[in-house]
Amino acid sequence: MTRPTVRLRPKAEARALRHGFPWVYADELVTDRRTQALTPGTLAVLEDAERRALGLVTVNVSSKIIARMLDRDPEAVIDEGWFAERLTRALALRERLFDQPFYRLVHAEADGLPGVVIDRFGEAAVIQPNAAWAEAHLSALEAALVRVTGVTTVVKNGTGRARGLEGLAEETVVLRGGLSAPVPVPMNGATYMADLTGGQKTGLFYDQRPNHAFAARLGRGGSVLDVFTHVGGFALAALAGGAERALAVDASGPALALAEAGAKLAGLGDRFETRQADAFQALEALGAEGARFDLVICDPPAFAPAKPALEAGLRAYERLARLAAPLVEPGGFLVLCSCSHAADLSAFRNASARGIGRGGRRGQLIHTGFAGPDHPILPQLAESGYLKSLFFRLDG
Amino acid sequence: MTRPTVRLRPKAEARALRHGFPWVYADELVTDRRTQALTPGTLAVLEDAERRALGLVTVNVSSKIIARMLDRDPEAVIDEGWFAERLTRALALRERLFDQPFYRLVHAEADGLPGVVIDRFGEAAVIQPNAAWAEAHLSALEAALVRVTGVTTVVKNGTGRARGLEGLAEETVVLRGGLSAPVPVPMNGATYMADLTGGQKTGLFYDQRPNHAFAARLGRGGSVLDVFTHVGGFALAALAGGAERALAVDASGPALALAEAGAKLAGLGDRFETRQADAFQALEALGAEGARFDLVICDPPAFAPAKPALEAGLRAYERLARLAAPLVEPGGFLVLCSCSHAADLSAFRNASARGIGRGGRRGQLIHTGFAGPDHPILPQLAESGYLKSLFFRLDG
Repeated sequence: MTRPTVRLRPKAEARALRHGFPWVYADELVTDRRTQALTPGTLAVLEDAERRALGLVTVNVSSKIIARMLDRDPEAVIDEGWFAERLTRALALRERLFDQPFYRLVHAEADGLPGVVIDRFGEAAVIQPNAAWAEAHLSALEAALVRVTGVTTVVKNGTGRARGLEGLAEETVVLRGGLSAPVPVPMNGATYMADLTGGQKTGLFYDQRPNHAFAARLGRGGSVLDVFTHVGGFALAALAGGAERALAVDASGPALALAEAGAKLAGLGDRFETRQADAFQALEALGAEGARFDLVICDPPAFAPAKPALEAGLRAYERLARLAAPLVEPGGFLVLCSCSHAADLSAFRNASARGIGRGGRRGQLIHTGFAGPDHPILPQLAESGYLKSLFFRLDG
Repeated sequence: MTRPTVRLRPKAEARALRHGFPWVYADELVTDRRTQALTPGTLAVLEDAERRALGLVTVNVSSKIIARMLDRDPEAVIDEGWFAERLTRALALRERLFDQPFYRLVHAEADGLPGVVIDRFGEAAVIQPNAAWAEAHLSALEAALVRVTGVTTVVKNGTGRARGLEGLAEETVVLRGGLSAPVPVPMNGATYMADLTGGQKTGLFYDQRPNHAFAARLGRGGSVLDVFTHVGGFALAALAGGAERALAVDASGPALALAEAGAKLAGLGDRFETRQADAFQALEALGAEGARFDLVICDPPAFAPAKPALEAGLRAYERLARLAAPLVEPGGFLVLCSCSHAADLSAFRNASARGIGRGGRRGQLIHTGFAGPDHPILPQLAESGYLKSLFFRLDG
């Protein structure tokens, strides 16, 4: 097998790669004409400046992450067997963590499949091939997925920002099996309806699972406001955990319809209310109404997905906190979440605390939660842990 | 009532204090002869440079934290009623979080009682008055504690580094009631024996509760090694959660005796083994024996309690990770903890990842846990969140 070779620049740091760092940035690689000509997703042998092989990479010269490490063995063959080995390892972790087959099965780099996300919904799975190499090897990946997990339905979800950065087109298709309706997903005692082909991302966000559970404990016996609820995220978990009533706000009518269907299926419908509205406007309106809740959650989409949006994003988080804090009963709880890569924990916490203060309240921070354990990270990329959920208890 | 007045220097930042920051550092305060003469723990009115009152503080000119905010009302009276109001608020949070009265009841600044720690063990409570003002108001605090919680036994634990920084003497006494034996503490399905008068700190560390629970889930059906086990911390939780066997290592014979008593009381004694040894030596010996475990935990005392110890502390954490990683079965789990204020999350994570790599292993980080929610923090002091527990899954 003759594979192309790409080479690190003399100054580039090979040590991090040897110790498990999975990426090569564009300015670290010799990009001669031969490398420039490689089709995005091409497999190549990565060498250090002294021509020692470091491993097998996938190259995409149009991406800032110009090479991603696939295997430390430069002669590894990327076929169904290779995928099956990685999926088996990923599955073993999830089977230890969860009693039912509803989870993120593959979380990209940390599961040894750079740029690949796979969410499992019982007998169905949704693949997000967010890197060019994965798109090119999709049929081997799909075959391995079916072999290892036994799923009968496989959806390819080709939406989202990451694909654009890799130069991939948007496209969502059912690769195998069929889907006639949203899939009911059991989580934290609640039931969520996941629309695997028409919904946001892969149909449901599993990452908030432990934070839903923590919030549910705080909401027992009380009233809950869940802003940016999507398909009922925090609200349904809180109701299942014993909250007296919940109001769920989202701008999306279809998402709220799924939330209502989930509430009904779990017998929680009579304690559940929805409001289709812009979140900021809904918070202002509730403030004007003098509404108060024992537990308020704001789980917005990423306001600061990347560096250039950081300042504006932090201002939006602060504004959200400022509008939400006055709606919390004295001694009640405020949960503020960020899934922004660019806003690190400290910046997000400061913006949140500022907003709470400007909303006329003070609080203790009782818990900081991240994405659940089916979203592992490489220690070398841990700074990028995107999801942060802050649990505040507010004074009177 | 005429109280002494202390004043911020003109350049000092009053804004942070107005927004809830609870401390004044020595270089921010005008320390004229009058201020210098104040007995440590004196209550005083804090003014900004323009002589506007900011609140009631306690002053200790021998401490780097020269003043701590007690109340935004400069005329607040610090008596039993004042303590009762704060304790009631603290108790409400814990009663919401826990079904049984075993928890940290007061976690200092975040519960409105600067420098005061109170742990509750059912009908008994242990107070750590780690600041001079609390020592001076101990009888009012004790009376309020009994009134609000109904505890019948109160211990004052006057050990630890913080008291030394405040110029307080070491002294542990039973203030009320009596104790004839260690107290059995139910937590995560296990039973821990807490020695409230002779043990480390207040007899038991409640802070690891959620991390014990997370580890227990990973240890089900497997073998567990718990290094620095103290009174059985991770090991007993894992056994209660279904681990097949656990080996617990500690340098303290009395701590291990309590661990064994706890295991026996919960009917876990036949699956529990202890080894009294230096942790590093025990890890090396186990490595030489070729021992392997499905779950290994290292929960050492603070290797880097303060800045000057940071470099040496991080080397010690790295060494621990290097010695522990080879003892983990392929696909097994390694839990590394730090309770060092000076080592922040990022520094500790890097040291841990380096150690794992030098131990010849690679891993995913599946969970990062902090102290439990009965250890709230002020958002303004959140950087000092001292406890970090990293959960790695190691490759084959």
